[in-house]
Amino acid sequence: MGPGGLAPNGRQRPNEARDQELGMAINKERLVSRLDSLGRIGATAEGGVTRLAYTPEYRQAEEMVRRWMTEAGLEVRTDPVGNLIGRREGDRREQACLTLASHIDSVLNGGRYDGALGVISAIEVAHALSEGGVLLDRPLEVVVFMDEEGARWGDGLFGSEAMTGQLSAEVLERTDRNGVSRAEAMEDWGLDPARFDEAARDPSEIGPYLEVHIEQGAVLESEDIPVGVVDAIAGPLFLEARIYGRADHAGATPMGELRQDALAGAAEVVLAAEAAAQATSPSCVATVGRIEALPGATNVIPGEVMLSLDIRDVDLGARDRAEATIHGAIEAICEKRNLTFRVDELQRTEPVTTSPAVVEAIAAACESLGLPVFPMPSGAAHDAQVMTAVADVGMIFVRCRAGISHSPEEYVTPDDVFVGARVMYEAALRLGRD
Amino acid sequence: MGPGGLAPNGRQRPNEARDQELGMAINKERLVSRLDSLGRIGATAEGGVTRLAYTPEYRQAEEMVRRWMTEAGLEVRTDPVGNLIGRREGDRREQACLTLASHIDSVLNGGRYDGALGVISAIEVAHALSEGGVLLDRPLEVVVFMDEEGARWGDGLFGSEAMTGQLSAEVLERTDRNGVSRAEAMEDWGLDPARFDEAARDPSEIGPYLEVHIEQGAVLESEDIPVGVVDAIAGPLFLEARIYGRADHAGATPMGELRQDALAGAAEVVLAAEAAAQATSPSCVATVGRIEALPGATNVIPGEVMLSLDIRDVDLGARDRAEATIHGAIEAICEKRNLTFRVDELQRTEPVTTSPAVVEAIAAACESLGLPVFPMPSGAAHDAQVMTAVADVGMIFVRCRAGISHSPEEYVTPDDVFVGARVMYEAALRLGRD
Repeated sequence: MGPGGLAPNGRQRPNEARDQELGMAINKERLVSRLDSLGRIGATAEGGVTRLAYTPEYRQAEEMVRRWMTEAGLEVRTDPVGNLIGRREGDRREQACLTLASHIDSVLNGGRYDGALGVISAIEVAHALSEGGVLLDRPLEVVVFMDEEGARWGDGLFGSEAMTGQLSAEVLERTDRNGVSRAEAMEDWGLDPARFDEAARDPSEIGPYLEVHIEQGAVLESEDIPVGVVDAIAGPLFLEARIYGRADHAGATPMGELRQDALAGAAEVVLAAEAAAQATSPSCVATVGRIEALPGATNVIPGEVMLSLDIRDVDLGARDRAEATIHGAIEAICEKRNLTFRVDELQRTEPVTTSPAVVEAIAAACESLGLPVFPMPSGAAHDAQVMTAVADVGMIFVRCRAGISHSPEEYVTPDDVFVGARVMYEAALRLGRD
Repeated sequence: MGPGGLAPNGRQRPNEARDQELGMAINKERLVSRLDSLGRIGATAEGGVTRLAYTPEYRQAEEMVRRWMTEAGLEVRTDPVGNLIGRREGDRREQACLTLASHIDSVLNGGRYDGALGVISAIEVAHALSEGGVLLDRPLEVVVFMDEEGARWGDGLFGSEAMTGQLSAEVLERTDRNGVSRAEAMEDWGLDPARFDEAARDPSEIGPYLEVHIEQGAVLESEDIPVGVVDAIAGPLFLEARIYGRADHAGATPMGELRQDALAGAAEVVLAAEAAAQATSPSCVATVGRIEALPGATNVIPGEVMLSLDIRDVDLGARDRAEATIHGAIEAICEKRNLTFRVDELQRTEPVTTSPAVVEAIAAACESLGLPVFPMPSGAAHDAQVMTAVADVGMIFVRCRAGISHSPEEYVTPDDVFVGARVMYEAALRLGRD
């Protein structure tokens, strides 16, 4: 590809030849330095970040991102649930927009790239288009979705569900571990939770959707390929199980039938979930990420245990089978141990396939940059899958170190950050055209 | 026993005949109504109580108990760690005192009888002696030990260890779940934690020790006997294990070798502890009462898990074997799962046997009331076992419903409350004499 120069300033329709050159307009230094800046907000002692939805850390990150959007020539607004939207009109006002999106919230002590990489890449693409004076046919929107991770209220994909009109009012009543409901947090944020449904967009306004995200798995690294083209997204099923036994004195209650130890039962459930995923399919995963034993004292047999279940597969049938196996195991364990239980559903998202047209644009972008085209599934959930309800969706996965994510050790090399944004830029040029 | 009348008011040495009569001086109504009053302090929605050491609820309970002590004719003082001591001099000032003791702190959402029954019975015995004008040879002390349960800092028997000079300064640095150290809590309570060692008593001041306590097991109920004479107390060993894995994305990290799930490992440890106790001896118990998974999000594989271990047996050798088995299991589980771990000791109390002389006095008391003499071990830990360092110790167990303790469902019938206090009164008369 030869050395790139700045494109002429006038607003012109891009052409194939100049695309190559404009691809070089992606500013690697700016990308990497912005990742560093955003990673300092909510930074944890271990080197990760904690930026939960509607918190002071989130506000600080949002203000930083808003500034960058403005610098990228975008008109910035927020919607009724706090999604941040930066827009630049296209050559033809009436057309459905090209959306480049991700999120800036994190899990507890999560990584600096999950979400942030996609948002900063999207802003960089807008910035490069603006600096290059490239006007797309379609309007361009960079979207920062609120509460993708769901780390605060246990159910993610909040902003995209609101934007696509798929949000149910009851999620507003969920309370976080400090007893604060989502509705209360929204009010404190300056929003009116009763107006959440006004965040829903007219589907005709929404055209193709593109998201850059770290892989959060180790496939690209093992294949030695910097980016992958996502062809399917596993649907997460989040459950919350409660096991009920009887709180008794740990010293004076002999082992055996007199004990109704809810935690011993829960321990069997943790292992049964692991075994069920392993037995179901190679792409099936099941994880217990949260557990709480009550009353929670060293010398008291737990009378109640709460545990979360995260069950996923790209194949819905397989996920359903795993769910049934785990449910049956809970039943059998509780029967055997004289315990009772209940299982509540926190979130049930169906696996989706991405749009062939968008996959094709990403593939063409990879080819134009001399990169291999590597189709792959996503084990993680993303706002992209929610957006399939209204948009033609595609995702670009970027290689990350050892597949580690949701951890302070999450890492993407500056070179791979650069490649991801360049592929997005090239794909955006193709999708932004009529 | 015949109908009881009030004893003459003058201070007289009791004799065998009048003892019978004085035994009736125990006021059943007062006992039961005081248990109700104390049970309302720190009452929980579920019908239990939460009264942790050095909290406003504890202060309220202490003030109530102090008032009752004064009404019982005791001179009340507190020692440098907050043990509450009510004293009445005996006929011969120089003699070591007879101690009647228990505690008023509770576990989280614990029962209304654990500790409280012993304190109220002790005060009632003092009150009956005072009302009956009975002067013992020995001084009488009613002691309310601070923080027997250890529910706030994870290590109990605090007040009795301080009183017997067995407390190590490091327990003052432990922090509760809100990050408050025991030393800070003591300061807020009006104590100088640096002076904790001044709570240690001269062993020559301490004579026989008697404690009434609910059984916290179901043996007396199954034998249809209201009270038992404790002949051995199981020593509790409290450990805290930490299992370390790696926090990864729950959706994008396939099952199998790439996962280092600390909670799956911890679940195996919970079950291994249960199995180890069952395999060791009929009197051995092992319980995981607390568990915490970090970072603690639905969609993140736990990178670290803390769990408590409570291991007990009346036979120290058996307890040591159970400990070794569990330690070996943790090692093997972590090896197999590519995890690491550490185990810290929170408390290690040796099992003890009670004093033959005190056991004999309790047995004689039972016989004098026409009750069967039923020797039995205590699976639960008690301040009594700490007091064996300086005193001749005995305990009277009172039958409780279904063996349930450390639970809102804990219950003792008014009749059994009455019987327990009467046995204590009779035993106190015998032990209070020269």
